[in-house]
Amino acid sequence: MTLIMNAWYVAAWPEEVPPGEILSRTICNEPMVLFRDREGRPAALEDRCCHRQMPLALGRLEEDCTLRCMYHGLRFEADGSCVEAPGQANVPAAARVRAFPCVERHGYVWVWPGEAELADPDLIQDIFERNDHPDWTSVHGTIHLQANYTLLADNLIDTTHETYVHIGSLGDDNIQANPISVTGDEKSVLVTRWILDHDAAPLWREALNQDGNVDRWQIIRFQPPASTVLDVGVAPVGTGAPGGDRSHGAQGCNLNFGTPETEHTTWYFWAFARKFRRDEPGYDEVLQKKFANVFAEDSGAIEGAYSVMRRNPGRPTVNLRNDAGTLRARRLVEDMAAAEAARSGQAG
Amino acid sequence: MTLIMNAWYVAAWPEEVPPGEILSRTICNEPMVLFRDREGRPAALEDRCCHRQMPLALGRLEEDCTLRCMYHGLRFEADGSCVEAPGQANVPAAARVRAFPCVERHGYVWVWPGEAELADPDLIQDIFERNDHPDWTSVHGTIHLQANYTLLADNLIDTTHETYVHIGSLGDDNIQANPISVTGDEKSVLVTRWILDHDAAPLWREALNQDGNVDRWQIIRFQPPASTVLDVGVAPVGTGAPGGDRSHGAQGCNLNFGTPETEHTTWYFWAFARKFRRDEPGYDEVLQKKFANVFAEDSGAIEGAYSVMRRNPGRPTVNLRNDAGTLRARRLVEDMAAAEAARSGQAG
Amino acid sequence: MTLIMNAWYVAAWPEEVPPGEILSRTICNEPMVLFRDREGRPAALEDRCCHRQMPLALGRLEEDCTLRCMYHGLRFEADGSCVEAPGQANVPAAARVRAFPCVERHGYVWVWPGEAELADPDLIQDIFERNDHPDWTSVHGTIHLQANYTLLADNLIDTTHETYVHIGSLGDDNIQANPISVTGDEKSVLVTRWILDHDAAPLWREALNQDGNVDRWQIIRFQPPASTVLDVGVAPVGTGAPGGDRSHGAQGCNLNFGTPETEHTTWYFWAFARKFRRDEPGYDEVLQKKFANVFAEDSGAIEGAYSVMRRNPGRPTVNLRNDAGTLRARRLVEDMAAAEAARSGQAG
Ligand code: FES
Ligand code: FES
Ligand code: FES
Repeated sequence: MTLIMNAWYVAAWPEEVPPGEILSRTICNEPMVLFRDREGRPAALEDRCCHRQMPLALGRLEEDCTLRCMYHGLRFEADGSCVEAPGQANVPAAARVRAFPCVERHGYVWVWPGEAELADPDLIQDIFERNDHPDWTSVHGTIHLQANYTLLADNLIDTTHETYVHIGSLGDDNIQANPISVTGDEKSVLVTRWILDHDAAPLWREALNQDGNVDRWQIIRFQPPASTVLDVGVAPVGTGAPGGDRSHGAQGCNLNFGTPETEHTTWYFWAFARKFRRDEPGYDEVLQKKFANVFAEDSGAIEGAYSVMRRNPGRPTVNLRNDAGTLRARRLVEDMAAAEAARSGQAG
Repeated sequence: MTLIMNAWYVAAWPEEVPPGEILSRTICNEPMVLFRDREGRPAALEDRCCHRQMPLALGRLEEDCTLRCMYHGLRFEADGSCVEAPGQANVPAAARVRAFPCVERHGYVWVWPGEAELADPDLIQDIFERNDHPDWTSVHGTIHLQANYTLLADNLIDTTHETYVHIGSLGDDNIQANPISVTGDEKSVLVTRWILDHDAAPLWREALNQDGNVDRWQIIRFQPPASTVLDVGVAPVGTGAPGGDRSHGAQGCNLNFGTPETEHTTWYFWAFARKFRRDEPGYDEVLQKKFANVFAEDSGAIEGAYSVMRRNPGRPTVNLRNDAGTLRARRLVEDMAAAEAARSGQAG
Repeated sequence: MTLIMNAWYVAAWPEEVPPGEILSRTICNEPMVLFRDREGRPAALEDRCCHRQMPLALGRLEEDCTLRCMYHGLRFEADGSCVEAPGQANVPAAARVRAFPCVERHGYVWVWPGEAELADPDLIQDIFERNDHPDWTSVHGTIHLQANYTLLADNLIDTTHETYVHIGSLGDDNIQANPISVTGDEKSVLVTRWILDHDAAPLWREALNQDGNVDRWQIIRFQPPASTVLDVGVAPVGTGAPGGDRSHGAQGCNLNFGTPETEHTTWYFWAFARKFRRDEPGYDEVLQKKFANVFAEDSGAIEGAYSVMRRNPGRPTVNLRNDAGTLRARRLVEDMAAAEAARSGQAG
């Protein structure tokens, strides 16, 4: 499927773009360099000098935060304009490199690889749990996935896989045995699954840090093209969680962004925010490792499936009852791609 | 050339498929998983779950020898039928993976990658020397060859190459100096070469384990698409070997199966059975190493030639007198491929 | 752009083809083996046996300097004729491999990958500085470049890059600040740049081995398709170098040949001949390392630019004032390619 260009994608964690350094990354087939301007704001330029096509990733950030091509010395501002052409007094009018809309928000650096005039930062969804709210703390990581980005949402929306892929951490036999409910609108899909009155899976037992049966919830919101946020947790059975009172439980929020690098590879930015065991020394490190392991297990499954998928274009597959959410999500992505194609057809 | 699908191919040595383990192997472009069913018989399934295309090679063999997909838990019998779909009471009718005919015979596991209804196990040739006869003992090995499978028979049928490729083991100057005779029918080619009254090549001197000149024979039977069996040996000169009495000599049988993995890569299963020095401790290991080395030399030549061949599609080559056997063998393979193409043309 | 076949290209340094050894190298997409004949002259044959296409690089040079294919033993002379076919008395008339015109001159082994009848050795340019003149001594090296060969001349002709690519060795800020003058004819481009009365760049300071400001010259002659020779040096300011008396200075000659291996890869043969500090023990080694480093820096820039270029076929670039020489050189290469295409159109 063609990539959707007119959308905000997570391009990097803020700490990957420290002042004075150049990060080279491809987003939606567009090779970019990311760096910070004089005000410390992230900027994204095409990774190609307009003179002899030297990668700007091999360039040098000058003290005034302009970026110099280190082949013949053209120097560019964060907006892509050229401010110096060595060996001549005037900069040629055509000397300019493409700049991509780029903002930092909610603890992520976002880029918009498509038409710049459509890039409204307020289209970025509110995800305060990651680092904008004092009640939450989070761990995170990045995985370079050998698969089309849509498979990540497929994986996350159907939690049935936890029983098999995450044995010994998140998985237990109760998940697959419990039905899901699926709702949504034109802009999102909402999948809910409750697993009531059961022995907690190991990772959740540890999160809750107490004995006894639990009620477990998985409330999954997918927004096209590439965001899947899971409200998850467990609470002691009978404390009212299914009715809405989750204060006695361990509450988590798993944020997932699958940014296409190319059609066949994906930058998977995962985070797990929590309200439980927040100030315990060393627990961040423990949890970071555990979730890095969980998402590496997912990645193995996704990459395995994608390699088979690429060998079998167009071959039919069988759907199961629990695919109701993923099928609806896939439709939203297809609609978004179709709308973009229609728009560019009109424009052209 | 297109691969021939309706044929039995060696897929594995029996010990590569121990009970409770999954072997993943591609045969004729078909990725398969091999495992043993409840009766210990080998089975071959397509390496693709019918749900979201997870490789079954990443699955888990359950205690009852069913194979579970470890993404969302579908469970399959050795015949490809689905016997469990987690999260729902009924298995969808379409849930099934392709099973390939698979049998164990003469010390090999065979699969038939084509139309299952044509797969008669009695089409498998009789090769008792490998492990079905008390007078013979054998060593064997596998080479993953970067070449089309037909080049292996080319190599084996024209033993002229031994003079150059196998200096110091099987080769001596006498081979190329002796003519071959070629016969055959619609299903096989027979190439015979006698090298009379000469100093034995090093490996044969050691096999015979005595001094004095020898008579050496090479009787090569090729059967399309991929089997080349050589009746080979030396006997002290004058003991009647050319007339049929080889009992005074060292008798060997070299069995070779070149199973296409893809058009450009081949699983080369070689074995060397012998009637000489059978019960000598440690001699199996010695001989295994020596022949592994011999066939590695062949592989180097084959892969070298194939890499040049791929750069030069359709360019003419020069034939020599000793190519009479290989040219006849090639025709049998072409005829078999043409017959299969004609059949599938009619079917369609 | 299509490769130009009818031209002499540097194929190897003479010491890469010692008597009795086979060098395998691809020139203009033609895989070749280079070796010396009975008279010690270099020869170049196609790296493909005419029988079953075994690479001759895996062959054996016999004592009489014939080359034997080590698959079935065909034996070839340095002119490509076959002189022995094992197993038969007569060599088949068609048994022959292509020989490429090949000569050793001025300290290089040259081959002509195109039509042999056009290969006049007197077309090879005179470059006595490399090893044919007692006043000069030289160091040299080879780089395997992941780029089209024309980018090497682009790099060498526009020395503006020295300011940025060769900081700390050849580069200083004065280079880019000084204009170039460009002349030439149908067969060459001449670019001249003088940098007068300035502090010498580190490598030139060391070459001159004295203090004080210098005049520096860069006189660059490009000859299509692949030769760029630079007359370079510095002399103490006021000693008459701009007027023609360079005897008080450090004079160097940088010889560069970019031989296409394929359209996308290049054998870069560089040499630096000098008239200064010639008999100083150990200075050759010092200078070899310094220039190997300089040309590795160039290669990094060239490969970076080429990788971007391949992703952006046909996209416009911006030219700068100092591109006057490279643009003229590029036109000469295009004219030469067009003439060859026209000629082969007439022939066919
Ligand atoms: S390639 Fe960037 S300045 Fe020349
Ligand atoms: S992919 Fe096998 S059960 Fe889902
Ligand atoms: S391939 Fe060279 S002699 Fe057969």
